[in-house]
Parts: sequence; structure tokens; C-alpha cells
Amino acid sequence: MLKTEIDYAELLSDLGRGLQSNAIRKLTVLLGRREVISLAAGAPSPDTFPIEELSEIARQVITDRGRVALQYGPTKGQSTLVEAVVDILRSRGIGEAKPTEVVMTSGSQQGLDFVSRILLNRGDVALVELPSYIGGIIALQNTGAELVGIRQDDNGIVTSELRETLDRIRSEGRRAKCIYTIPNFQNPSGVTLDPARRRELVEIAEENDLLIVEDDAYFDLYLDDSSRLAPIAAIAPERVLYLGTFSKVLAPGLRAAYVRAPEQLAAKIELAKEGADLSSSVLDQAIVMEAIRRGLIEKRLGKLREFYNVRRLSMFDALERFAPAGSRWTKPAGGFFVLLELAEGIDTGSRLLAAIDNGVAYVPGAPFFVDGSGQTTIRLAYSRESPERIAEGVELMCGVLKL
Amino acid sequence: MLKTEIDYAELLSDLGRGLQSNAIRKLTVLLGRREVISLAAGAPSPDTFPIEELSEIARQVITDRGRVALQYGPTKGQSTLVEAVVDILRSRGIGEAKPTEVVMTSGSQQGLDFVSRILLNRGDVALVELPSYIGGIIALQNTGAELVGIRQDDNGIVTSELRETLDRIRSEGRRAKCIYTIPNFQNPSGVTLDPARRRELVEIAEENDLLIVEDDAYFDLYLDDSSRLAPIAAIAPERVLYLGTFSKVLAPGLRAAYVRAPEQLAAKIELAKEGADLSSSVLDQAIVMEAIRRGLIEKRLGKLREFYNVRRLSMFDALERFAPAGSRWTKPAGGFFVLLELAEGIDTGSRLLAAIDNGVAYVPGAPFFVDGSGQTTIRLAYSRESPERIAEGVELMCGVLKL
Repeated sequence: MLKTEIDYAELLSDLGRGLQSNAIRKLTVLLGRREVISLAAGAPSPDTFPIEELSEIARQVITDRGRVALQYGPTKGQSTLVEAVVDILRSRGIGEAKPTEVVMTSGSQQGLDFVSRILLNRGDVALVELPSYIGGIIALQNTGAELVGIRQDDNGIVTSELRETLDRIRSEGRRAKCIYTIPNFQNPSGVTLDPARRRELVEIAEENDLLIVEDDAYFDLYLDDSSRLAPIAAIAPERVLYLGTFSKVLAPGLRAAYVRAPEQLAAKIELAKEGADLSSSVLDQAIVMEAIRRGLIEKRLGKLREFYNVRRLSMFDALERFAPAGSRWTKPAGGFFVLLELAEGIDTGSRLLAAIDNGVAYVPGAPFFVDGSGQTTIRLAYSRESPERIAEGVELMCGVLKL
Repeated sequence: MLKTEIDYAELLSDLGRGLQSNAIRKLTVLLGRREVISLAAGAPSPDTFPIEELSEIARQVITDRGRVALQYGPTKGQSTLVEAVVDILRSRGIGEAKPTEVVMTSGSQQGLDFVSRILLNRGDVALVELPSYIGGIIALQNTGAELVGIRQDDNGIVTSELRETLDRIRSEGRRAKCIYTIPNFQNPSGVTLDPARRRELVEIAEENDLLIVEDDAYFDLYLDDSSRLAPIAAIAPERVLYLGTFSKVLAPGLRAAYVRAPEQLAAKIELAKEGADLSSSVLDQAIVMEAIRRGLIEKRLGKLREFYNVRRLSMFDALERFAPAGSRWTKPAGGFFVLLELAEGIDTGSRLLAAIDNGVAYVPGAPFFVDGSGQTTIRLAYSRESPERIAEGVELMCGVLKL
């Protein structure tokens, strides 16, 4: 039988045609095969995984509760875990959090996908930070929405610029529906949105009937108590869709995260999830719940902060010693990332292959900037390598950047 | 500070507004608290879960490979598991299956969501069987596509009706992009698409440049070898997006399933997944892989088939004895479901609460029919209860239906 060639492109939806690859994920795949010092991967260090404890917990939850942990589960998540998440939210200052506001998701990425899908139509406007997390950008863009960037300084989103941008959008007869922010130790900048700006952001959101999508993946990874800041959701829970995750404090291979949103929106997120995957891994949820019940997460946070602090200091120190003249970098008070900005004229993307040839990888900053800027920036992660290798990697990288 | 009331509905996208609840999931939640014989839940029986083996496997994969199994993983899935899926596909007759065509998903529901999203725009037409799986209907509808139903008889989709419908759609100046089919032991009808019809379906798809979305969740659950039919994807891999799952043969709480599609479409599905959740549970994938490696799935299939066959026979027998006069039912050769159709005028939805009060639950068939028909039908599942309770449940149900 003679078959006509199938034109798959012609059969795609607008989304199917528009889907774009995540530059970091591509890089990660590339690097998977190379023996380089990685300042690129933003994943937690596997050295922090409580392997022995999780092995025992997995064995136990299947043995004791396998008939539930291996069965289909409720879309919004296992009820005990939802209750535990409510406790976490309250401990962060979201005092009125309720189980009806919480939906468990397969990583915060899934929460971002749902939030984007229930809010945004093709052509709508969503605001993001400059720079912003690529996974968040992709989830928002996959709706066909237009993303408009708001500059950050060392205290986070520049609120005056946010006001101006909103005025401009309105003067064009359009309307922004939401702003996506990572308030603590932002990915990729490492910057924290300071408390005064958090309050101002809420005021602006109220004046402009804007929802705030608060991605607080790094909340627990503050390096001292002065950097433990109450979420924006604690100020204005009715305005905020709040995303939290167990990926950074336990293990990301367990896809366990959550969204807290005003009840009406949480109900929509739950319905979106029903169509998207029925439920997240029930076993992963059972393991996370048992880890919480045993106090495993709470117990290890101190060590985890110290683990990353040593690495952060090593990176700061190496940047002081080796960074090319005219460059500046952020000084994160937690999380995994430093944003390095080089002097004008140095395109960090064009130097990446040379850096890899010299034994070090980083992420060029441009893909994090939705306005097309950022060519002179680099995202550096201190989450993955040892302090010694971080120092060596920064030195190697700076050598290439100075060429 | 005086806050204006937020009009959340006004902030929703078209999808957010249109999201509809899955009638079965709602019913499952309702039933979770009642002591009734459930002929409703389509989940596998937890009696079939290999709890001891999976407990040991989970312990082992975390102990031995925790640094990988607990870390972020590649979006398309763990490569060893993708290779194992390729072997499964080849064993089913899809001889040319390649790893580049396979993406692991969190249950087949997620595959259905991705396939729908990459293919369908708002207003597009997709074809589904009458009746069809509600989760598939929801995933397709969430794109804003219009679903058009094609009647089934005891041999599956009535291909003459499919041709007529496609002609009608074309004469209206519109075009159908895909047809969604569950060829083996369909959910909810239990019907199998016979081999001649499979070939005819492919011909029609070629004539109409239609893609076929083949959801083969029940492939392995044939009750004798004569019902082990090669997938449609074996006839025309270039036309078919094929969905398989480990939910029914291992455990659905591990969200492990896969899509195989022509390379170009698989690449789009992978990108959709990247924005949707980065990857499925890496631990779940590692557990499934180890179960395959140990031959656990293969070894238990015989017993699994016998387990469900005993229940199926019990249901057939009870229907013979108790079904109301004028009713007919399907005779599935595998899977979990029987579709019972009552005499005209009996609305099965209106009898459900009375049935539950009498100690038995079923799923009224109407939500499975996208054309609004099916009021006299019932989906019966024999997957969950013991043979004795199935017999008792059918008797109780029929008592209520005769009132």
C-alpha cells in the first residue's frame, strides 16, 4: 500500500507548534556525558539525600500501607499530607491556610503549569521578573500569553518599574492578569524580595486587580534567621497562589510539591490536575508524609543550610579572586544561585563551549530574560559541587571569560 | 485596609472556566466513606499488588541507586526504562519501535493530556467512541475541541458510521484531527475492536489524514490467547499515538505509563512534559524498571488474568440470573468492565442513590457518551470486589433497577 507522507506539523495545535525547549535542560543532557565541574545544574546535591532513611521509609510504607500507597489516590493528594502542608504553610505565616486551598502537585513545575493554564488565554499578559526561572517562563508561555519583564535590583522587583509597566499596559487597552515571582533567593538571580517591597507588591496587585504567583521553592534554604521572610501569601492570601516543594529539602526524584490558592482557584487547579494525571505518585506522597511524621525534614534543615553555606562562601571567595574586571555578582542569603554580570560586550553564551572544553560548565543568563537582554550574565549554581571544585570551577570559568 | 472583593471567575482563562469534573472521580470520593459493594471503581484490586516484592524493590533501588532515583531525571524518562518499554512495544508487534518515539508519563491520563494539547486547538474536532473513557474525554475537552462520538457495536467502532461522520464533518467545511480509541476491553464498554475493523480504521485514517490515539491500558489483561490482539500501532505506526501503562499490571499508585508516537510528535510530547512537570517520579520509574528486570510483571500476568476471569464469570453469571427483563450486556474478553443496557425508559442515574442505600454502587453510563445518550446504561467493574460480593452486588443492584 502506497502511503502519503504525513505532514505532522500541519496536524499540531498552536501549543504543539510553539513548544520551546528549556535551554538549561538541554545543557544538562549535554553535560550528562562530560566530566566537567558543573556550576550549571540547579539540582540539589545528591550528597544531601537521606538515602538510608528514605530506603527504610519506602520499605515501611509499602509494607504497612501498600494497599493505599500503590493504589490510585485522590487528585488533590493524600489527605494526611495535605494536612501536613497546611501546618507548614501556617508555620510560614499563612495563618488561615486550609486543606481546601491545597493541591499536591508533581513538583512545582506542575503547579506552574496548572496556574498558567487556569488563568491565561492566548494573548493575555503575564508579568515576570527579569531574569526569571526558565521553567516558569515556559509554563506561562505555553498558554500563548505574552510575558512582560520587570527589572529586579538587589532588593527584588523594582516596584516603581512595575507600576510604570502596568500603566503602560493599561494605556494600550490591555490588562495583566498575574505576576510570577520567586521572592526568596531567586532562580536565577539569588536575590530576595525585601519585606517593604513585598508589601508594596501587594498594594500594586490590589490597585491593579493582579494575582501574584509566588514560587517559594527555596524558602527553607535561608542561611541565617534574618533571611527567613514571611511569604507574600502571608500578607494577602486572597491575592496569592503560593507554590512550595519538597524537592530542595528532601529529594526532587520524589515529585512532591504543592500549590496553595484561594479556594475557588484551588478547586480549578484540582480539576486541571484531574485531567492532567488523576493524581501525583501516591507512593512519593506516602514517603514524604512518613518523612515529615518522623521529623526527618525538620531535623536535617540545619545541616542542609550549612552544606550550602560552605559552598556559597567558596563561590563568593573565588569570584572575589578571579572574576574579570568590571564584573559584579549578587550576594544571595540562601538558595542555590549567584548571578554574575560581566562588563559590556562579553557574550557569555558564545564562551560556553570553550568553558566546557576547559572543564567547567555554567548557564548563560540570556534565556532567563524575557526581554532579550542578559547576554552578559551567567547563572552560577553552588548546589552541586564540593567547595573545592566550586573554587576550581570559578577559576577555570573566569580564565575563559577573560580571553 | 479595605479590600475590594476579588472576582476570581473573571480572572480565569477559557480552560479555567470550562473545567469539568469527572463524574466517576466524584463518585469514588463519595463512596470512599460508605460500606457498599463497589461495582463502580475501575481501579485494580489491591489484592493483586505485589506488596512484599515492591517493598523490597523500593528499599533496594533507593539503597543502591538513590543518588539517581531521588534526583531530577530526564523528561522523557529513565533511559533503561525507555529501552524496556521499546521491548514491550516490539513484543506487542510494533516492530520498529525506537527509544526516540517513547516518552514516560505519569499514568496514561498524562499521556492523553499531552496528546490532546499538542494536537488540538479550541474549535477543532476530535472523534471518540460512544461510549468512551471519561478521563480521555476530559483531556480532549480541556483543549476546547469539539468531541464527536462514533457508535460501537460488539466488534468496536462501527466503521461505516465513522466514514459517514467524517464525510459530514468535511461537508461542513471542518476537519477531524484525531480519533481516540481503546481497542481492547474498552473502558467502559468492555468491547474489543476486531482485527478487520482495526485494518479498516487505519484505511479510513489514511483517507482522511486522521491520527489515531490508541489507549491500550488493558492490553495484557486478555483472558485467553485468542484475545491477545496486535495494536493498531503495529499496522500503521506512523498514524498512531499509542498509550500503554503499568497501572493495571503492577500498581497505579506508581504513576508509570508511556506514549509511543512518531518521532516528530514524541519530541513535541517531551517538550509538553518539560513544561508540565519536568519528569515523572524518578523513584516510581526505578521501581518499575527493577520489577521488569526481575521478571515480576511477566511472572504474575497468568495469575492476574485468572484473578479477573473468576470475577468476570461471577458477574456474567449474576447478570444472567438477575438482570431486569429486556436488558443486555457486553461480554468482554478481558479488562475490567461490562456495559449493561437496560430497557428503554429506565434512567440509571436516577436509581444510583437508591442502589447505594441498598449497599451497592455502580457508574451510570451517561457521562461516557459525548452525544448525551446512554441514560439507560451502566458501567459495571468486576475488578475490585471478590466473586461472592460481585454476585451479591449485581443481585442487589438489579433489585433496585427492577423497582
